[in-house]
Amino acid sequence: MAVPARVRILDGFMAERQRVNRERTIPHGFGQLERSGTLDNLRVAAGADGRYRALADTSGATFPFLDSDVYKWLEAVGWELGRAADPGLAAAADQAIGLVAAAQRPDGYLNSYVQAASDGTPHRDLAWGHEFYCVGHLIQAAVAWHRELGDDRLLEVAVRAADRIDKEFGPGGRDGVDGHPGIEMALVELTRVTGDRRYLTLAARQLDLRGRGLLGPGRFGAAYWQDHLPVREAATVAGHAVRQLYLDCGAVDVAVELEDQALLEAVRRRWEDLVATRTYLTGGMGSRHRDESFGDPFELPPDRAYAETCAAIASVMLGWRLLLATGEAGYADAVERALFNGVLSGVSLDGTGFFYVNPLQRRTRRAWEPPGDGGRAPWYPCACCPPNLMRLLSSWERYVASADAGGVRLHHPATADVRAEVAGGPVRLSVRTGYPWEGRVAVEVAETPERPWTLSLRVPGWCRSATLAAPGRDGPVAAGAAEVTRRWAAGDRVVLDLDLPVRVTEPDPRVDAVRGCVAVERGPLVYCVEAADAPPGTELEELRWDPGRAPAAVPRPDVGPGVVGVTVPVAGRGAAPSVGAVPYFAWANRGAGAMRVWIPR
Amino acid sequence: MAVPARVRILDGFMAERQRVNRERTIPHGFGQLERSGTLDNLRVAAGADGRYRALADTSGATFPFLDSDVYKWLEAVGWELGRAADPGLAAAADQAIGLVAAAQRPDGYLNSYVQAASDGTPHRDLAWGHEFYCVGHLIQAAVAWHRELGDDRLLEVAVRAADRIDKEFGPGGRDGVDGHPGIEMALVELTRVTGDRRYLTLAARQLDLRGRGLLGPGRFGAAYWQDHLPVREAATVAGHAVRQLYLDCGAVDVAVELEDQALLEAVRRRWEDLVATRTYLTGGMGSRHRDESFGDPFELPPDRAYAETCAAIASVMLGWRLLLATGEAGYADAVERALFNGVLSGVSLDGTGFFYVNPLQRRTRRAWEPPGDGGRAPWYPCACCPPNLMRLLSSWERYVASADAGGVRLHHPATADVRAEVAGGPVRLSVRTGYPWEGRVAVEVAETPERPWTLSLRVPGWCRSATLAAPGRDGPVAAGAAEVTRRWAAGDRVVLDLDLPVRVTEPDPRVDAVRGCVAVERGPLVYCVEAADAPPGTELEELRWDPGRAPAAVPRPDVGPGVVGVTVPVAGRGAAPSVGAVPYFAWANRGAGAMRVWIPR
Repeated sequence: MAVPARVRILDGFMAERQRVNRERTIPHGFGQLERSGTLDNLRVAAGADGRYRALADTSGATFPFLDSDVYKWLEAVGWELGRAADPGLAAAADQAIGLVAAAQRPDGYLNSYVQAASDGTPHRDLAWGHEFYCVGHLIQAAVAWHRELGDDRLLEVAVRAADRIDKEFGPGGRDGVDGHPGIEMALVELTRVTGDRRYLTLAARQLDLRGRGLLGPGRFGAAYWQDHLPVREAATVAGHAVRQLYLDCGAVDVAVELEDQALLEAVRRRWEDLVATRTYLTGGMGSRHRDESFGDPFELPPDRAYAETCAAIASVMLGWRLLLATGEAGYADAVERALFNGVLSGVSLDGTGFFYVNPLQRRTRRAWEPPGDGGRAPWYPCACCPPNLMRLLSSWERYVASADAGGVRLHHPATADVRAEVAGGPVRLSVRTGYPWEGRVAVEVAETPERPWTLSLRVPGWCRSATLAAPGRDGPVAAGAAEVTRRWAAGDRVVLDLDLPVRVTEPDPRVDAVRGCVAVERGPLVYCVEAADAPPGTELEELRWDPGRAPAAVPRPDVGPGVVGVTVPVAGRGAAPSVGAVPYFAWANRGAGAMRVWIPR
Repeated sequence: MAVPARVRILDGFMAERQRVNRERTIPHGFGQLERSGTLDNLRVAAGADGRYRALADTSGATFPFLDSDVYKWLEAVGWELGRAADPGLAAAADQAIGLVAAAQRPDGYLNSYVQAASDGTPHRDLAWGHEFYCVGHLIQAAVAWHRELGDDRLLEVAVRAADRIDKEFGPGGRDGVDGHPGIEMALVELTRVTGDRRYLTLAARQLDLRGRGLLGPGRFGAAYWQDHLPVREAATVAGHAVRQLYLDCGAVDVAVELEDQALLEAVRRRWEDLVATRTYLTGGMGSRHRDESFGDPFELPPDRAYAETCAAIASVMLGWRLLLATGEAGYADAVERALFNGVLSGVSLDGTGFFYVNPLQRRTRRAWEPPGDGGRAPWYPCACCPPNLMRLLSSWERYVASADAGGVRLHHPATADVRAEVAGGPVRLSVRTGYPWEGRVAVEVAETPERPWTLSLRVPGWCRSATLAAPGRDGPVAAGAAEVTRRWAAGDRVVLDLDLPVRVTEPDPRVDAVRGCVAVERGPLVYCVEAADAPPGTELEELRWDPGRAPAAVPRPDVGPGVVGVTVPVAGRGAAPSVGAVPYFAWANRGAGAMRVWIPR
């Protein structure tokens, strides 16, 4: 199996997203963790005076999983400090790590809600308590700090917490699974960094126990938490989207470690069905608000899309795992679609406004809402998405390239330094690109062993025309992986040119909700029209695509540096002959007005 | 203002629906009230041993409003016994009335949940407690028994319960409204039957107090329970559909009694917007599952339509009130559309299977569900809809015709005897029709005063060609009210002929979810195609409307006696040249397969 290459993103689109994440989003997140009481809850669990506090949503519900927001934030900081020092971030993280360590009980148990807001009895409500789930995020943070910084303060806490769970729920112990999967993939990582296979065994046991009805039907039925069928038997995804995707991440990790091909195939089968029947053009997943679940096949309403930011992030995590496990470029296509659209739409360009839900349409006239623009929020009472975005963006280097003995694969174009080990020795590549705005990806071999190895560049599935120029070859390449195997020399150059026309996309005829519409794409980006760009006096609902004229790419510096927009030819009452479309990820940065991805013909 | 005429339905479509309701649904309902523990809860409140019991849904939630199911059932029985004696029904009702009376506290307070499942303190949770709401249904039952049978056992209980509320919440008392409106219209009726204007004053006070934020935001925001804006100010419907419609019923009743034109206009304005922007072709209302609410304007997905049966019933109640208050035939059109489609779809043809939710599309492939066909249920843990259907069908005579000093209006064709008082004296009409299958409505004047009066027959808004033959005139009439004013003689005949072609209906282009589709209607009936009628090996999703051929009406005795179906011309892979469509109200009576109202062109 391939492993992530060591990548340093130097410039370009994702470098800018990472810069905003580091300089704006992560510091903002620390402030919100204080403001919401989430850090105070750990203080109370550690013995300080005070009461467990939850940022009240309209229901006044108390959420038992707020610790996980701290862990996700810490994970992001771990990645960031690994990239470069930052005394302010380090000091904030030290504070948070100290709180986490202080809150942990001597027996290893750690959950501020149970310790500070209930009577302290662990694991009494596995269905809704999110106790394993929180420990899972603690482990992920600990692994990041261990790997990136060699700092094991969190790892010591995480090991004690995992041991406490293993003691009660390990082999021969109590049969129980968490209502929210997530710990499985973390336990596999814990085995990878500690070498202790007990955690892998516990992860496998969690997978095996799920689907036996241990959680009961809950409010939404057993499928909500994937407890309706065993993980190896369920043919399709079901229930709460994030739960399913996190579960399948853990299933791939366990399958890889145990070389369990049947388990891997079960996940692949579900993934294929998910991508074919229940995924939005933006890579968003989950079409129902009521239970945050996948809907029926082809039930993909643009207006009521749930498409939670966390689900898009989880699909990146799962697609990446399947890519590493199989080497199939199609998984990277899916990761790219989700990242550039359904993930990045979840955070504003300035880094401090978030969307939990990512619809593909917002109407001009809306149901009554409280005064305010109904747009992005600085935080959420259930704040799973913002710190999840932080950790994904902070760790994006891990997704860019992978390597195994035979060579190096570039999955996502980025201006970056890439280092990897192949059979013959170390490889270093220098990649330069203006992607996703431009289609040229130039790779220079900076360091290479003498023995031949294979350089593989993904040609995205959306690309209908690409050429590859490499020493000794020059010509068209098809979508998939363009591979060059040779004895490389330092200074060798490979240039991939991806044609980037504006594409007019017809929906699958089985998606009833967007029949008679088209969407605009360019490269990996899905576009949308926004009220901010509609001709004065025109509502977006009046716009009709004019099939007689072609859309065209245009610079949109008003939206952001380097941004390429599209002019969409329209014919509508009072409309100008065309209207500007912007990348979907950039919507709702100029006020929260009407928007649509799918435009009626 | 007009008042309901005294109508006796003798034969035909609604007579059959009423027969099934009386002979099957209402007895079935009594069995379910016993089986679910709803009657036992009243026994426990009255002092019997036992615990409050709720038919558990998957969440194990305990519903505090189950008493209302008993009251709605009793209201239905009141109407039925008024029509004709039935010793079995009467005995069951006596039992229920006895329980209700026994459960009432000496101070008049009555709510089995508060008395048997909490500590007994009244009105501590006005937002979710449904205490006024339950008393509202108690009053409605009491009024039916008083009016139809002169039996005041329930009325005495209801008056005491209303007095208890008035004492605490009347003028000068505590400011509070119920999270679920409904008591307002009941209180107006209580004033009408008792002459005591305190109840009307209390109803008006409830309306005035709403929209001040007394309920707090709850789980879904203040608009959920219409507490976001004062009743007189809200320009559009908002929030939970049944709550909004019940509230507006009470607002019309109060407006009529107090001659408050501004209040009436506020309701009319909301209704116009509701019908124009948020109503399904079936008359269903409420497009969101999450909070059972109206969606944005034109957010009308057929697959995820919520369209609760109770909302369609409530729209009949509200449309009827607006019709009486204004005389405008358009309100009767809306009532008819809801009744024949979105209401009747809520109960199976055999009377014992119910739908709470009434979508306009069900796909062949669906999200994972527990084994079972996912079709109609014999009862629901939250059983508001079944007994609501019972009382509407039992009282349908009240909706058929109205009268004032100037004459008689026939709103809904039915084979019936109609009695009314006009200025000159009593009128009796004999109406004969095969509606909705046939378009002829024949009215014979059986009794008439000597002075002239006006006979008005509604020509439905869907009708594009109608003729009226009356003494001294014969010719085409337009949609609206066809009126004949004359000095009538016994034996005079008026015949309205409504042309009943199959209509192919294009959706409003602003309804994104059904773009590129058409629907089939005939008379007041909306049609749908069902898997049971699809050619073998064809999925409904593959069917495409063939615009080159016309649909045609065909008898469908297999669906029910007298039923007229439609053959829909289709062109689809492996499809026959046409497929049968059945009235929407009759769907899911031959198994619970795929269905769709809107067919892609």
